[in-house]
Amino acid sequence: SRTIRLAVIPGDGIGQEVVAEGLKVLRAALPSDVKLETTEYDLGARLYHRTGETLPDAVLEELKGQDAILLGAIGDPSVPSGVLERGLLLKLRFAFDHHINLRPGKLFPGVQSPLAGQPEIDFVVVREGTEGPYVGNGGTLRTGTPQEVATEVSLNTAFGIERVVRDAYRRAQARPRKKLTLVHKNNVLVHAGHLWTRIFEQVGREFPEVTTDYLHVDAATIFFVTQPERFDVIVTDNLFGDILTDLAAAVTGGIGLAASGNINPSGDFPSMFEPVHGSAPDIAGQGKADPTATVLSVAMLLEHLGFAAEAAQVEAAVAADLTERAGARSTSEVGDALAARVSG
Amino acid sequence: SRTIRLAVIPGDGIGQEVVAEGLKVLRAALPSDVKLETTEYDLGARLYHRTGETLPDAVLEELKGQDAILLGAIGDPSVPSGVLERGLLLKLRFAFDHHINLRPGKLFPGVQSPLAGQPEIDFVVVREGTEGPYVGNGGTLRTGTPQEVATEVSLNTAFGIERVVRDAYRRAQARPRKKLTLVHKNNVLVHAGHLWTRIFEQVGREFPEVTTDYLHVDAATIFFVTQPERFDVIVTDNLFGDILTDLAAAVTGGIGLAASGNINPSGDFPSMFEPVHGSAPDIAGQGKADPTATVLSVAMLLEHLGFAAEAAQVEAAVAADLTERAGARSTSEVGDALAARVSG
Ligand SMILES: CC(C)[C@H](C(=O)O)[C@@H](O)C(=O)O
Ligand SMILES: CC(C)[C@H](C(=O)O)[C@@H](O)C(=O)O
Repeated sequence: SRTIRLAVIPGDGIGQEVVAEGLKVLRAALPSDVKLETTEYDLGARLYHRTGETLPDAVLEELKGQDAILLGAIGDPSVPSGVLERGLLLKLRFAFDHHINLRPGKLFPGVQSPLAGQPEIDFVVVREGTEGPYVGNGGTLRTGTPQEVATEVSLNTAFGIERVVRDAYRRAQARPRKKLTLVHKNNVLVHAGHLWTRIFEQVGREFPEVTTDYLHVDAATIFFVTQPERFDVIVTDNLFGDILTDLAAAVTGGIGLAASGNINPSGDFPSMFEPVHGSAPDIAGQGKADPTATVLSVAMLLEHLGFAAEAAQVEAAVAADLTERAGARSTSEVGDALAARVSG
Repeated sequence: SRTIRLAVIPGDGIGQEVVAEGLKVLRAALPSDVKLETTEYDLGARLYHRTGETLPDAVLEELKGQDAILLGAIGDPSVPSGVLERGLLLKLRFAFDHHINLRPGKLFPGVQSPLAGQPEIDFVVVREGTEGPYVGNGGTLRTGTPQEVATEVSLNTAFGIERVVRDAYRRAQARPRKKLTLVHKNNVLVHAGHLWTRIFEQVGREFPEVTTDYLHVDAATIFFVTQPERFDVIVTDNLFGDILTDLAAAVTGGIGLAASGNINPSGDFPSMFEPVHGSAPDIAGQGKADPTATVLSVAMLLEHLGFAAEAAQVEAAVAADLTERAGARSTSEVGDALAARVSG
């Protein structure tokens, strides 16, 4: 019998509520001979206000020994913008080298898209997770004065691009349509853009069956709303991936349904699964939040840990639930319904 | 009687065709005592292939003496990505300090939006045009090797941000809803983001009647498709503005209708007006391109040169034409129809 050590970081706002439902469904889905050992870490706004810390070194060390992390959401209006994002969420992504930030964009049957004509949408964005403008390399000069200058440096390495591009090709190769789109802005950000383009073409030679194309990020947003069915797998940089995956969530029925995995395929460090949505402080504590994005993130977690059948079961439960949704249900009602479907 | 010296840069692909119609409408709209002196500059792919140059110094000097520039589109598959964009289009924007990149997002009656429910959309994006990740400050190390590193530096100054933010407040103040939204990513790009946020708040004190809010760029894309009616004036950085205005064009009926102005309000250098769309080489030379975006850019040009009534007339002609469109018309048929409405 196998034991899974899962770190749980509920975080702020609705994080607590949605994570509770995610765990409910995870427990229902795991085979009975698998033991789930969860350790909850109280990180986020409360810890920050109490101690000034966002991610204590001791916690980071402990997390290294876990098999995976389930994260709810972080961020609170009482904490200056960037403190928890950089000090906790991005710190985990960088410390654990989560270079594959995987974000499916799928319009489930029964879900209303804001796009007229309910197009068929089923793609996945492979967002680079450890480079680009997210590296935190920037600064200010003459801070706070009318002469202030602020910089942000986007760092891109052949090594970092190649591993995420190869991962995206493999995913495209394994899907029926075998299509991969590179999104960047290589007509303006020529240094980073040409490096991405060169490696995209180089690695592509290993995957002759995969059809490829390239879109500038601005043009890609147009296709997301006018022709989302054209996309199969998309590979892109950290910032463009951030922007495109929120847009993807919007056109596939909202961030209440958008799942993500921050994956380190080497297994050297735990991968982390989280809904794309934020902490939504305006509706926190009211049992209103839709836990579906967290439950779909749990499906990705199961897949990552080798439970492919169980992952498919969770996704099927969500798909079935979505076709039958009518009227508002509470966070735990949705979680209960999904857990019941998975066990039943 | 007044003379207007207009530089015309048709550029590549459909640029030629749409600019011809723009000029037709401009001539029809100008008061009869105003003389229009146009000088055409053959810049773009042809010049580049012939001479290797993108913007000869002598041309740049000549352009300085013009009252305004009308540009069609630049870019061709035969030219490496970035050469014409950086060497011509961005060179003009930077050389003439076009710091206000103005891009209306308006859904005209009769135009089909890809969004269900045809929301009311009428906002304007004030995109910074001379800073941010567009400055061309980056490079590569170990170029072409598996150890390559590429950087892109986003440069942001209090001076540059303040002037565009103040311009956006003025525009918001002059509109009925008096609402201004700052879009950035200040939870990740903390240096640039906090500078934008600080100046946005500071300048806001001069405009107590303007209601303000802030959105991260990823969240903004969601609202563009789920609630575009919430926006009035948006101010944002060069790259976020690039992305958001293509998305804005998509939800308001496509880039065939999206106009833009690259404005230097000081008047020290000519401002430049251009459709948001590209050179569309796939349909070039076929008389298929919709010249409406160029005609609406001509309306912005008229407004900028002090012909407010004539600008309104051109916009009214477009609005009337759009409600009556049926069946495909050629580029020049649309131009003729608009010119006739304006003269009539
Ligand atoms: C909260 C923020 C740092 C984060 C990001 O920008 O990556 C979020 O938007 C996301 O997409 O996971
Ligand atoms: C062609 C390109 C350099 C340009 C930009 O990125 O600004 C275009 O996309 C635009 O929006 O005008």
